[in-house]
Amino acid sequence: MITKAQKKHIQSLQQKKYRKLYGEFVVEGNKSINDFIKNAYQIKNIFTTTSDFFDPKFPIETINNKELKSISFLKNPKDSLAIFSLKKAENIDIDDKILILDNIQDPGNLGTIIRTADWFGIHQILCSNETVDAYNPKVVQATMGSLGNVNLQYACLSDFLKKYKYPVYGTFMEGKNIFKEKFPDKMAVIIGNEGNGIRAELMQFITNKITIPKDEKASAESLNAGIATAIVMERILGL
Amino acid sequence: MITKAQKKHIQSLQQKKYRKLYGEFVVEGNKSINDFIKNAYQIKNIFTTTSDFFDPKFPIETINNKELKSISFLKNPKDSLAIFSLKKAENIDIDDKILILDNIQDPGNLGTIIRTADWFGIHQILCSNETVDAYNPKVVQATMGSLGNVNLQYACLSDFLKKYKYPVYGTFMEGKNIFKEKFPDKMAVIIGNEGNGIRAELMQFITNKITIPKDEKASAESLNAGIATAIVMERILGL
Repeated sequence: MITKAQKKHIQSLQQKKYRKLYGEFVVEGNKSINDFIKNAYQIKNIFTTTSDFFDPKFPIETINNKELKSISFLKNPKDSLAIFSLKKAENIDIDDKILILDNIQDPGNLGTIIRTADWFGIHQILCSNETVDAYNPKVVQATMGSLGNVNLQYACLSDFLKKYKYPVYGTFMEGKNIFKEKFPDKMAVIIGNEGNGIRAELMQFITNKITIPKDEKASAESLNAGIATAIVMERILGL
Repeated sequence: MITKAQKKHIQSLQQKKYRKLYGEFVVEGNKSINDFIKNAYQIKNIFTTTSDFFDPKFPIETINNKELKSISFLKNPKDSLAIFSLKKAENIDIDDKILILDNIQDPGNLGTIIRTADWFGIHQILCSNETVDAYNPKVVQATMGSLGNVNLQYACLSDFLKKYKYPVYGTFMEGKNIFKEKFPDKMAVIIGNEGNGIRAELMQFITNKITIPKDEKASAESLNAGIATAIVMERILGL
C-alpha cells in the first residue's frame, strides 16, 4: 500500500527544490537501484513489484503494478521505484582525468554523457552550477545506473580552474585535430553548452584548444553534445 | 495566408502513410531547408517568416509567426517550414563504406546517427525496412540538415547481404577490440536495435565481430546506440 502522503512526497522529488530540501532523489528499475546500493548510497524506501529481488534488510514495500504506475515518472514503469539520500559533496580528485561540463542543459545529453563516462572509466565529472541537475529523474534514467558509479560534483568552474595546475583542454570548432593529439595523464577537458559552447569567462583557463575534424563535404555544422563528449573521452583515454 | 487545406495537408505529413501517399515530407528551419535544396531535393512549398532568405524562384509563401506556430511540428517553431518531394530510391554504393542499421527504433537516435555519419563523411546508410522512417519529422529535425547529404535507403537486409561480397562487421558485447582493429576500405558495419542488438537471421552474414571495450569497474551495461555508432564510424574511418 502506498499512502497519499508517500505519493505526494515522491512526486515532489521531480523538482530540484524538493530534492534539495529533503536531500533525496528517485531511482527507477531494479538494475539501476542495485547500482546505487552497490555504490553505498543510503536507501530510504524501495517500492517494488518484485520483492524477492532485494535483500530483505532494506526498507521494502511491496506494491502492485497499478500502484507503481501511480508513482512512477516513466511512461512505461519498470519493476521498482526507490528513494535514496543524496550524498554529501565530495572533492574532485585532481590527480585523475577530469571531465568538466559547462552548462549542459538537456537532461538526456547529461545522462548519456554520464553513462558513457562510466563505460570508459572516467570517474571525475565536474559540472558548472548552471548545468542541469544530475538527480533530475530524466537524467538518472538516462544514466542507466551509471550516475552512482561516478564522482559528479557541482561547482563554480572559474573558482576551480583558478587553482587547477594541469593542462585544460577545451573543444572548439577550430583547434588542434583531436585524432592527432597525445593527452597527458593529469588533465581536464571542458565541454561547452549545446548551443553556445564554452563560456567566454572560462577561456583564460584553457591551455589547449582541440576539435573533432569534419569531412569537407559535410553539411552538419556540429555534433550532438553527447556524441562529441564520447569521442573526446575515448581519445583522451588513448584507447 | 495558409488555407485550412494546406494546414491539414502539412499535418498529415507527420504520418508515414501520408508521406508515402503524397511522396512528400516536411523540413523546418532555414538552415535545414537550404541543405535539402543544395542536395537537389525538389521543393513544393516554403512557408516562411523570413522571405528574403530564399531565392525568389522558389514557391515561397510569406506567413507570420502565429501562422508558423499553427503548422509547425516543433514546440519552438523556427523561421520556416517547407514541403519537399521524397527522392526516388537509389542504389547503395557497395564500393564505399556502408553503415547498416538493423531496426533502430528511436527517432532521436536515428537522427543523431545520420548527423554524425554526415560529419565524418560516411554517405551510404542502409536501413532495415523495420527501422524508423528517416522522413519522420523528429528524425529530420535531429539530423539538422544532414539527411539531405547522405544516401539513405531502406531494404531487406538479408537480401542485400546475400549478394554483398566484402567484409561485414557487427557490433556485439563480445568481439574483437575495436580500438585495435584495422578496417578495410570496402566494408559494411551493422548496428543493432537499441534493446535487442542485431537480429539472429543476420548473424550468418557477419564476418567480423567487434566490440567497444568497457572499463572493468563500469556499471554501464551498454552504450547509447548513437554513441556506439559514432565511435564505430570514427574508428572505421581510421581518423
